[in-house]
Amino acid sequence: MSRTLAADLRAHVGATVKIAGWVHRRRELKSVTFVVVRDRSGTAQAVFPQSPPVTEETVVEVTGRVTANEQAPGGVELTEAVLTTIAEPSARPPFDLYRPAVAAGLPSILDNAAVTLRHPLLRKRFEVAAARVAGFRRTLDTLGFTEIHTPKIVATATESGANVFELDYFGRPAYLAQSPQFFKQAMVGVFERVYETGPVFRAEPHDTARHLAQYTSLDAEFGFIRDHRDVMAVLRDVIAGMAAATASLAAAPDVPAEIPAIDFLAAQGLLAQHTGEDPRGEPDLAPAHERWLSDWARREHGSEFLFVTGYPMAKQPFYTHPSPSTPDFSNSFDLLFRGLELVTGGQRRHRHADYLAVLGDEAAHYADYLTAFAHGMPPHGGFAIGLERWTARLLGLANIREATLFPRDLHRLRP
Amino acid sequence: MSRTLAADLRAHVGATVKIAGWVHRRRELKSVTFVVVRDRSGTAQAVFPQSPPVTEETVVEVTGRVTANEQAPGGVELTEAVLTTIAEPSARPPFDLYRPAVAAGLPSILDNAAVTLRHPLLRKRFEVAAARVAGFRRTLDTLGFTEIHTPKIVATATESGANVFELDYFGRPAYLAQSPQFFKQAMVGVFERVYETGPVFRAEPHDTARHLAQYTSLDAEFGFIRDHRDVMAVLRDVIAGMAAATASLAAAPDVPAEIPAIDFLAAQGLLAQHTGEDPRGEPDLAPAHERWLSDWARREHGSEFLFVTGYPMAKQPFYTHPSPSTPDFSNSFDLLFRGLELVTGGQRRHRHADYLAVLGDEAAHYADYLTAFAHGMPPHGGFAIGLERWTARLLGLANIREATLFPRDLHRLRP
Repeated sequence: MSRTLAADLRAHVGATVKIAGWVHRRRELKSVTFVVVRDRSGTAQAVFPQSPPVTEETVVEVTGRVTANEQAPGGVELTEAVLTTIAEPSARPPFDLYRPAVAAGLPSILDNAAVTLRHPLLRKRFEVAAARVAGFRRTLDTLGFTEIHTPKIVATATESGANVFELDYFGRPAYLAQSPQFFKQAMVGVFERVYETGPVFRAEPHDTARHLAQYTSLDAEFGFIRDHRDVMAVLRDVIAGMAAATASLAAAPDVPAEIPAIDFLAAQGLLAQHTGEDPRGEPDLAPAHERWLSDWARREHGSEFLFVTGYPMAKQPFYTHPSPSTPDFSNSFDLLFRGLELVTGGQRRHRHADYLAVLGDEAAHYADYLTAFAHGMPPHGGFAIGLERWTARLLGLANIREATLFPRDLHRLRP
Repeated sequence: MSRTLAADLRAHVGATVKIAGWVHRRRELKSVTFVVVRDRSGTAQAVFPQSPPVTEETVVEVTGRVTANEQAPGGVELTEAVLTTIAEPSARPPFDLYRPAVAAGLPSILDNAAVTLRHPLLRKRFEVAAARVAGFRRTLDTLGFTEIHTPKIVATATESGANVFELDYFGRPAYLAQSPQFFKQAMVGVFERVYETGPVFRAEPHDTARHLAQYTSLDAEFGFIRDHRDVMAVLRDVIAGMAAATASLAAAPDVPAEIPAIDFLAAQGLLAQHTGEDPRGEPDLAPAHERWLSDWARREHGSEFLFVTGYPMAKQPFYTHPSPSTPDFSNSFDLLFRGLELVTGGQRRHRHADYLAVLGDEAAHYADYLTAFAHGMPPHGGFAIGLERWTARLLGLANIREATLFPRDLHRLRP
């Protein structure tokens, strides 16, 4: 008999079926025992006159007749049930997986991820993340992007010498890539529109709730743009596609047809006018300022998203394209969501001479990177979305580690 | 005026449009000059009475009237054309990108990938690869798999201490993951069916045409199987889905509804009978034997694919599940395609006690890995497809580096 998933039982009332999964819960009443079986689709209840000798997390098959019962979870249950044990656990989970709430702290959850993530609430976070990545790809596929796979081992630090992991590469020093930035730009010259979904590595020395040593970066880059506003328009569609992809799993935020945008200087002006602080002259926004601006966007524009554009060039990486009319400011943007900066992006420099001028003596160090520009590159730009950070924000998780299967950080290298 | 792609011009005959891309080729005749512009969709020809002052690889916009001309490539060309230069190259490509053949050796192609991959023949390889990955994901999404993202930095070598890159992890030694094997197995306990498409790392000391230090592994793993034959059935559907996804780009191989399979011992018997060699007693097949068996499958079964099953346990990793009836042999398989082993897979051990028995004193070393099995795991299995190796074989490329954007190997760490 082939297997039926728990979620499909309703379509088989009256039939005898086989389900398979883990014993999620046993409930012994006076005259019957309920065994709730968990599979990838959900849970199903089976009824036994005698209590079968199984503990939670035993892997089982249960055959039985699908019987409607409005009091059963899902409206059906298996009666005349026969249970077969497939594999027995030899240890108990650190907390009861069947209880609605997760009764464990984060270290215990992470140390025992192979079993704790079986809890439906914890598992769901990663189903949301998977759906979001699928939405990212689907939106960009529709727009003519090509997926690429770029090296994670590089000869020189990607953007700065700081926070880079060094490794022994056949006796030579090499580094883990902090981003696919240089490769994705070069591939605009080949494919025009590219994306990559892969790991990036930061030897982040700060032990915070929002930094990891490895995270999943959703990177896009494309050419023949007018300026950063074309990048923002594609990002808006990507965000909307990611939200739509998770709509059945989690409350998805409304993504306005046009996400409101405020210029960096105007944002500082607002902050000076309303917050009692005067950040004017600072080259970046403080986290508290991002929170205030997010609140402002919700009040003024009814939007949980806000673009801040035109950050000063002083704090931008060298590949950022300056604003043609005000070259001390950049064609860059951050996307704020619920008080947090979740995406950075912008237009990049595309003229070889501009790179030579800005890099000066350092140009030789970036010779490989500069090849693309020496051979003719269109105006282009892109963005990078940190998957785990976004999933955490979307689901209201306080710590990015709660949205990571097996986090890596300053202290954590296992499991 | 918004941009029209080269491939879409036929739908706009009579209209004035703007195209944008790279000058692919200039051809000066007596009375006119043809400029062929290349964009992500293909090429388009524009006709100029005077020769515009642009070299190949200049980034341009061209406006003009779309005019039917059966002698033009694609059946249309732009007349009354006006060309605007967007960005000029400052160097010449190492070979002429407009010639049909690639007139450069592999080192030159790889050293200058940012420009050489613009050649339509070279670019197409990676469009094929991208379509194949999309087909992999689409097939597994339909089958209820969940995408996961696992650590690439690990505390212990994944499968063996050999060929592993060591790095400095905040002052401690750590390693680059050789595969997501342990993580994907653990996640079967959470999601039942998982896949990952990501980089894996091998400090491969051999300088061969089919080894890389980093490659893209398409990994799948799933539970509640009967044995390795269920894994082979899913792999067959994945292969068919990948072939279908590339059908418009490259000649896709026929994937039989059931891929022929031969047992390892029977394969050795055939080889002994027909090749003048007697490999019986050897624990593995030699490359020449794989080629002979592939030829045999084509002759006998009309199939370019052949499963070889039941390899001896002696050469299998410890997690391989033995055959219940003949425990010196395994529930494993290799998939041969056109003479080469392209996929390995099989059923894994799922009982905690079995792992403890096979690992013995080493069990403590694998404590994190064993957590999943201590908490109840179903019979499960999976497979791993090396993307670049497969793309190379599919396209008849002699060297795996020809199917890699920026290869990493014993000698090559850049660009």
